[in-house]
Amino acid sequence: MKIMAVNAGSSSIKFQLLDMPAETQITSGIVERIGSEEALFTIKYNGEKFVETLPIKDHAVGVQLILKGLIKHQVISKIEDIEGVGHRVVQGGEFFKDSTLINDAVLEKIIDLGEMAPLHNPANATGIKAFRAVLPNVPQVAVFDTVFHQTMEKDAYLYGTPYEWYTQYGIRKYGFHGTSHQYVSEKANQLMGTTDTKVVVCHIGNGASLSAVKQGKCVETSMGFTPLEGFPMGTRSGSIDPAITAYMANKLGKSAQDITDILNKKSGYLGISGLSNDARDIEAAIEKGNERARLAFDIQAKQIADYIGSYYIYMGGLDAICFTAGIGENSPVLRQMIIDRLAVLGVELDPQLNKLRGERLISSPNSKVKVFIIPTDEEVMIARDTMRLSR
Amino acid sequence: MKIMAVNAGSSSIKFQLLDMPAETQITSGIVERIGSEEALFTIKYNGEKFVETLPIKDHAVGVQLILKGLIKHQVISKIEDIEGVGHRVVQGGEFFKDSTLINDAVLEKIIDLGEMAPLHNPANATGIKAFRAVLPNVPQVAVFDTVFHQTMEKDAYLYGTPYEWYTQYGIRKYGFHGTSHQYVSEKANQLMGTTDTKVVVCHIGNGASLSAVKQGKCVETSMGFTPLEGFPMGTRSGSIDPAITAYMANKLGKSAQDITDILNKKSGYLGISGLSNDARDIEAAIEKGNERARLAFDIQAKQIADYIGSYYIYMGGLDAICFTAGIGENSPVLRQMIIDRLAVLGVELDPQLNKLRGERLISSPNSKVKVFIIPTDEEVMIARDTMRLSR
Repeated sequence: MKIMAVNAGSSSIKFQLLDMPAETQITSGIVERIGSEEALFTIKYNGEKFVETLPIKDHAVGVQLILKGLIKHQVISKIEDIEGVGHRVVQGGEFFKDSTLINDAVLEKIIDLGEMAPLHNPANATGIKAFRAVLPNVPQVAVFDTVFHQTMEKDAYLYGTPYEWYTQYGIRKYGFHGTSHQYVSEKANQLMGTTDTKVVVCHIGNGASLSAVKQGKCVETSMGFTPLEGFPMGTRSGSIDPAITAYMANKLGKSAQDITDILNKKSGYLGISGLSNDARDIEAAIEKGNERARLAFDIQAKQIADYIGSYYIYMGGLDAICFTAGIGENSPVLRQMIIDRLAVLGVELDPQLNKLRGERLISSPNSKVKVFIIPTDEEVMIARDTMRLSR
Repeated sequence: MKIMAVNAGSSSIKFQLLDMPAETQITSGIVERIGSEEALFTIKYNGEKFVETLPIKDHAVGVQLILKGLIKHQVISKIEDIEGVGHRVVQGGEFFKDSTLINDAVLEKIIDLGEMAPLHNPANATGIKAFRAVLPNVPQVAVFDTVFHQTMEKDAYLYGTPYEWYTQYGIRKYGFHGTSHQYVSEKANQLMGTTDTKVVVCHIGNGASLSAVKQGKCVETSMGFTPLEGFPMGTRSGSIDPAITAYMANKLGKSAQDITDILNKKSGYLGISGLSNDARDIEAAIEKGNERARLAFDIQAKQIADYIGSYYIYMGGLDAICFTAGIGENSPVLRQMIIDRLAVLGVELDPQLNKLRGERLISSPNSKVKVFIIPTDEEVMIARDTMRLSR
């Protein structure tokens, strides 16, 4: 069966069409700059890439364009060939403990939860509405970034804040990148041939988070109430002294939200280095001896090692560390910096294997903890759940 | 020589008179409710406690009262018997790398640094001024809470915030309780008979912080720019997702500073349990089966164990864990909860020894990491530095 995996943003729709259960990608593409006279529609098929520039009024028009494009490029012969559509939804709160078939009530709940994820859920909901309008008879499934982390215990997900903040306002750790953490930890278990494992997944992209996965269940993760918590990322600060927000708001004559925006958009690699939020630029600058670029990687690697230490304690051991996502999969430098800091755990990279790409073991034979590169595939996870729930 | 150790708050002056270098306490006392018509002056001497209620206009009057009281109770025969006064100062910034003799410039710098510690440095400075006025010819020494942590490296003390926040506004991790962390870690090294050690100090009082001390040097600590960062304490939240401040300010119609005040004063044990900020009340409630009281200890113990895991990685090993301060010295329950979470490190308490008080080893003979109770003594540290710098 053909399943569409959709990731809708405020002005974009990313999609992949997968053949299931084979899990092979048939085509992928993106509609960008929705709302503009010069919007972009890109579709990749059979090794070719087609790009069109045209006005796209809204998400509904974007969806129609995608479906017409699939027929035009003979990816499918008719719209009915698509037997399910899976939508990435960022925030599922405590309400969604699994992916779910979308009906009106589910859609409404997703919109409600947008209060806690104002940059993501409303956009996700817009994508859902557009696909439901065009494909009213096709099952639509919501796949949440938060669901995999819902197995955390209270000691991990509650903050030291007033308990009423949790019961009345939902203030707790939710965690994000859940489909990625699940995909990678399951793959690691396959590679090790057992599910009786203690695994840390390092999802390091422009956004970045860690998870601790014990016997297939997530027990801890570094992102929190929002994707700002954790360690420094491309443009995000990660965790800081909570008193800094009010202090800097006062210093700069800005609001708490303005400061939070700086912590989300002007911090991390970008803020520390003053150069770029792109790990490739940081690596290039380190090569040239730039000290603040080095510091950007150092601070991130240090805090990632801190989390791995805390997860080692919390899980009572560690069998494997998995690197995934843009930087995790492609930066031997950062991987080496992180693993070097974990020497006391007896973990050791094979420097030659660490230079390679793609799914592989990169630790040395003597390493007490296995280290893997495992390219993530959130679309496959979305397609799997969509297939499971569409039948 | 007789040295006075002083801890001045906004409406109080705590003092101890010590005989140095013997490090024996001669007397101690406190002036409270300064500014009130019914202020209190308490002095303890020779096992007796004397309390007077009287109007005390300001700190200067309080200091005169203390000195007169010492003569009246025949602790000293004349004011000149006091050969040095050491003052606790909370925030020394990056400027003070050691305790220092106080002159006008030093006092001004302490007042300047009050911008970062508005609840503490101005009060500390008021105490200094009052003692200088009454004892103009006696050396006065400032002993900072932050100095012991100044040996941290950049990867530990810098945040993932814009670098200019550090260079222009001093936003970095300073750490607090430094004299306590230094006293306890030095004592632990004495007990182990070597300074080639990796020690974690758990200073757990109503305010609480951890430090990682490698070969006598502090390399990490849990408090940050202010004493709010870290793990949940009596009334403080410790670290949370930095986005929560703006979110809750918006929800409650309050300012960022109001939210920071809640995080400082209504969170931690008090906020989680809804009962009390006092560890003894929490323990009693746990005994009675109160779930949220249990949660208050659980969340704190979990996050303390997280820090210990990260310090184990950062120091590359761990020789000893030391418990100190009000709760650390007196709560076998919390100590057991923390150590139980560290099982993977091979650390184990002797349950009988853990029930006792006072300086002692409380780990079992098989434990791979030694565990100590070491009562802290910040006044002795202040007196030592005052003696060293007064000569």
